[in-house]
Amino acid sequence: MSRILRINTREKTSSFEEAGGDYAGLGGRALTSRIIRNEVPPTCHPLSGDNKLVAAAGLLTGTIAANSGRISVGGKSPLTKGIKESNSGGVFSQKMAKLDILGLVLEDKPDEGADPAVIFIDKDSVKIEPAPELAGLGTYDSVDKLTQKYGSDAGIMVVGPAGENLLLGSSIQFTDPRGRPSRAAGRGGLGALMGSKKIKAVVVDDSGCKAPEMADKDAFRDAAKRWAKILTEHPVTGQGLPSYGTSILINIINEAGALPTKNFREGRFEFAQDISGEHMVELINERGGVAKEGCHPGCVIQCSQEFRDKEGKYVTSGFEYETVWAFGANTTIKDLDVISQMDRACDDIGLDTIEMGNTIAVAMEKGIVDWGDGPAALELLKRTGDPKDYLGRIIGNGAAFTGEALGVDRVPVVKRQALPAYDPRSVKGVGVTYATSTMGADHTAGYAVCQNILKVGGDIDPLCKGGNVDTSKALQIATAAVDSTGLCLFVAFAVLDTEDALEVVAQMISARFGIEFTPDDVSKAGTAVLKDELAFNEAAGITKAGDQLPEFFSKEKLPPHDTIWDYTIEELQQAKV
Amino acid sequence: MSRILRINTREKTSSFEEAGGDYAGLGGRALTSRIIRNEVPPTCHPLSGDNKLVAAAGLLTGTIAANSGRISVGGKSPLTKGIKESNSGGVFSQKMAKLDILGLVLEDKPDEGADPAVIFIDKDSVKIEPAPELAGLGTYDSVDKLTQKYGSDAGIMVVGPAGENLLLGSSIQFTDPRGRPSRAAGRGGLGALMGSKKIKAVVVDDSGCKAPEMADKDAFRDAAKRWAKILTEHPVTGQGLPSYGTSILINIINEAGALPTKNFREGRFEFAQDISGEHMVELINERGGVAKEGCHPGCVIQCSQEFRDKEGKYVTSGFEYETVWAFGANTTIKDLDVISQMDRACDDIGLDTIEMGNTIAVAMEKGIVDWGDGPAALELLKRTGDPKDYLGRIIGNGAAFTGEALGVDRVPVVKRQALPAYDPRSVKGVGVTYATSTMGADHTAGYAVCQNILKVGGDIDPLCKGGNVDTSKALQIATAAVDSTGLCLFVAFAVLDTEDALEVVAQMISARFGIEFTPDDVSKAGTAVLKDELAFNEAAGITKAGDQLPEFFSKEKLPPHDTIWDYTIEELQQAKV
Repeated sequence: MSRILRINTREKTSSFEEAGGDYAGLGGRALTSRIIRNEVPPTCHPLSGDNKLVAAAGLLTGTIAANSGRISVGGKSPLTKGIKESNSGGVFSQKMAKLDILGLVLEDKPDEGADPAVIFIDKDSVKIEPAPELAGLGTYDSVDKLTQKYGSDAGIMVVGPAGENLLLGSSIQFTDPRGRPSRAAGRGGLGALMGSKKIKAVVVDDSGCKAPEMADKDAFRDAAKRWAKILTEHPVTGQGLPSYGTSILINIINEAGALPTKNFREGRFEFAQDISGEHMVELINERGGVAKEGCHPGCVIQCSQEFRDKEGKYVTSGFEYETVWAFGANTTIKDLDVISQMDRACDDIGLDTIEMGNTIAVAMEKGIVDWGDGPAALELLKRTGDPKDYLGRIIGNGAAFTGEALGVDRVPVVKRQALPAYDPRSVKGVGVTYATSTMGADHTAGYAVCQNILKVGGDIDPLCKGGNVDTSKALQIATAAVDSTGLCLFVAFAVLDTEDALEVVAQMISARFGIEFTPDDVSKAGTAVLKDELAFNEAAGITKAGDQLPEFFSKEKLPPHDTIWDYTIEELQQAKV
Repeated sequence: MSRILRINTREKTSSFEEAGGDYAGLGGRALTSRIIRNEVPPTCHPLSGDNKLVAAAGLLTGTIAANSGRISVGGKSPLTKGIKESNSGGVFSQKMAKLDILGLVLEDKPDEGADPAVIFIDKDSVKIEPAPELAGLGTYDSVDKLTQKYGSDAGIMVVGPAGENLLLGSSIQFTDPRGRPSRAAGRGGLGALMGSKKIKAVVVDDSGCKAPEMADKDAFRDAAKRWAKILTEHPVTGQGLPSYGTSILINIINEAGALPTKNFREGRFEFAQDISGEHMVELINERGGVAKEGCHPGCVIQCSQEFRDKEGKYVTSGFEYETVWAFGANTTIKDLDVISQMDRACDDIGLDTIEMGNTIAVAMEKGIVDWGDGPAALELLKRTGDPKDYLGRIIGNGAAFTGEALGVDRVPVVKRQALPAYDPRSVKGVGVTYATSTMGADHTAGYAVCQNILKVGGDIDPLCKGGNVDTSKALQIATAAVDSTGLCLFVAFAVLDTEDALEVVAQMISARFGIEFTPDDVSKAGTAVLKDELAFNEAAGITKAGDQLPEFFSKEKLPPHDTIWDYTIEELQQAKV
């Protein structure tokens, strides 16, 4: 697997090249970030033709390695104006890998007023076809039409109206194994980048393709077997996540006093039980939904689910903790049914749920919608799909933008990206990640919730400063490496707790490519990714002044622990490579 | 003149202090920028209580020195997020000086929902009084009510609905000698900063106060006499500006091929004559307006005017070249009557005309209003006054914000502040200033139009790179010094061409304070101001990556000269101190 496919979206031309030279040996986030660093002018307007959208499969994607089917999508972020890698599940990446495409690069852009186009890739051809009939369609309807045209075996990467309308909170959605566009590269407004290039969807069909060749088949099989065992035997990846999905965290984080409630005013939500993973699974079982499923073939964690309404009708899948928190505790909406509709609306319009939950809370600060009013919040959210609805455009542009639009100065963002579901005052390790990540506020960039709360991979006091900077730094390096393999980030729970896990990952990479890859190389690879990203950001004008949380976290004590955010920018610099 | 008056807008308390220590010897921009650098956390949210709004009289303000009544207003800019000094005419500054107040500092802010307040200052007292009756009023109506209450001798600093609604394009308006709020500290959204502190207006009444004492009365009088002569004898300050106002530049800059037309697409406007200063003066004379007047007592340049409608009714005053260009050539509106209504609307709602003209052009890029459609543009502009009109809020937040809201990537801003009325591709010296100023795009920060086009103070080719970086740097230093004296920037035309002018300015400062101030000290003072500003900006996260024009200036050739913008960021760094 070594090809890069470049598509000029203005000329409607395509070309393959070997992923050699500076791109040799890179996959996933390592590849997207290197291409962006090398090829995108850091100070360009993110929606200009100079920006590029890069989708990359990981080094292990397409193999039998468990949970190796994630995809990295990168570009200069329309939201943060810095580099961005947004990571998603779905079936797209494995099909890319089987088509022997490691990276897909969308370049240039058509003139204003051009029709949207669809890129179709199979083993014989690359076609770029006009698709005016898809303009403005939601992702669910788009996928229906694309499946009719291209068949149900295809994997689809698609933007909704939000991306087409160039909204900064827009996502890129990916289809799951049942063809639903419920998986999202949500963060950083990459949907707008794809929309600016007038690409409505990319469809990959791997019919007739084989899995990538292994340099050492036997060694790979042995390592992959041990790998699956490591994942299934760990209590988090083997039991917790499969049982209740990621929403198992609602009760855990609430108990820890760190579930951000009412736009980060409190750490406990009175109605946490109503939106908990335990309650969600109860409802799913009552209504004939699916309590556990994977986002791609080969997933052994199965943290996903299918959520249905009271009539037993499908609403959404990939209904994550972050989403439930964002539209739930953070807005004080306690009705899981409304929250599921909001998740569905985001998937369909093509919006980041974390960004939108924060944005609605910011709008609630100004009384645009009352706190806790689910139906009104859902209606507000749906306005984002109408390009002529200016409040909708404001909301769809995210929390920082909405704060500016409405004159709210209490806006939980870092580098303009909204905060995830862990209050940084009481989970300080993840707070350090929010502040210092190359991505803006991003829990997945260095998930110190492990050490702070779950006590996986260490035990660091979540309420005090000590140890959290070092922990975040180590995790940011490891995460950048994991994001380059195509492995799901959740493998980290098991990897951090299992002595030979990193060795096994290195063995798989070695056996796949016939090289000597060591656990030490994993860390080196992660550091190299972060250095690429920091270099891009610096040249784009993002400095350490942006490595800090908004001031209200340093001024308002968070109940119940009454902690504040107390790191200086200088202290936080130690978390950077 | 040595007192600083601090007002805590939350506690409604005030206190005087001597302007000593680090603030000794500073006036105008030197004082606002030093206070902001010393006292405002650079990374604070501009609308949080941590930001401060500082208004400062110049070192010569309140004296008989011609054209010395300008005011500097500063803070962390809600628009650029960097330091800001916005300079205005009007009678406020001289009255401050006569009250022996050099600087006025508004601190902290009241809670959400507090009533607006009015600060009244006279020789006996400082009062901070609730003024709910002024909430949401335009500046003209506000001034009417304030004059009824406080008398017509007062000088008024006031925000309109735009400032109250915290819009990023909002101005602070000042009353002129006839009590009209037509003078603006327009740039950088400082109206929103004042609005965030819930101060609707500051009223200063200097009744019973004397002019400041001179250390050497005779020397001051002699120098001031020579100073007035220098200004009245120069062709620009003595004839050009008094005859046609600043709009004399319409034909000059159009002829030079540098009048930005249709959102910076061309350098000549087909209907330039219709909006020229010559035509404006014709209309004024026909309709019984006033063709020349000053913005403050003691002005000998008299570049202002009173513009009336076809029925002879007052529309606006202080109707400047930048405004006429912004709503005229840049939007291709050719009707001076509509343009005058747009100026009036901006003064009344409290908005920066340069920012709004650019913003409307950006909206025209998306067809929100058709190119050249004056009535529709005026209607769009007026929507900014309604806090519940979301398109109005978008427009009122300026060009960069509107570009993001509507998905336009061809947006002429630097550091989020919209470009003034000289195309940087064909007036490269002022382009260097736009790119490198601490203020964002700002012609007044280093007006190389002098050397490029007017051939005042030098002769530097406007179309080529050579010499323009050095010219801009020298002008930026000189301007920072001039902005600290309270002198009108237009004195520069005469100063640059008159051998003893700088010496005379130094003599006035020396005689005023009884110190030895030399022409060399002027340059040192200017450099010190810029160093304060650069230090603040760096700590706020504004780096050299922001010292550049949007990429379209480097890609699109500007007719008629077919020039492009061709400086690298590294080359531009040489323009900074």
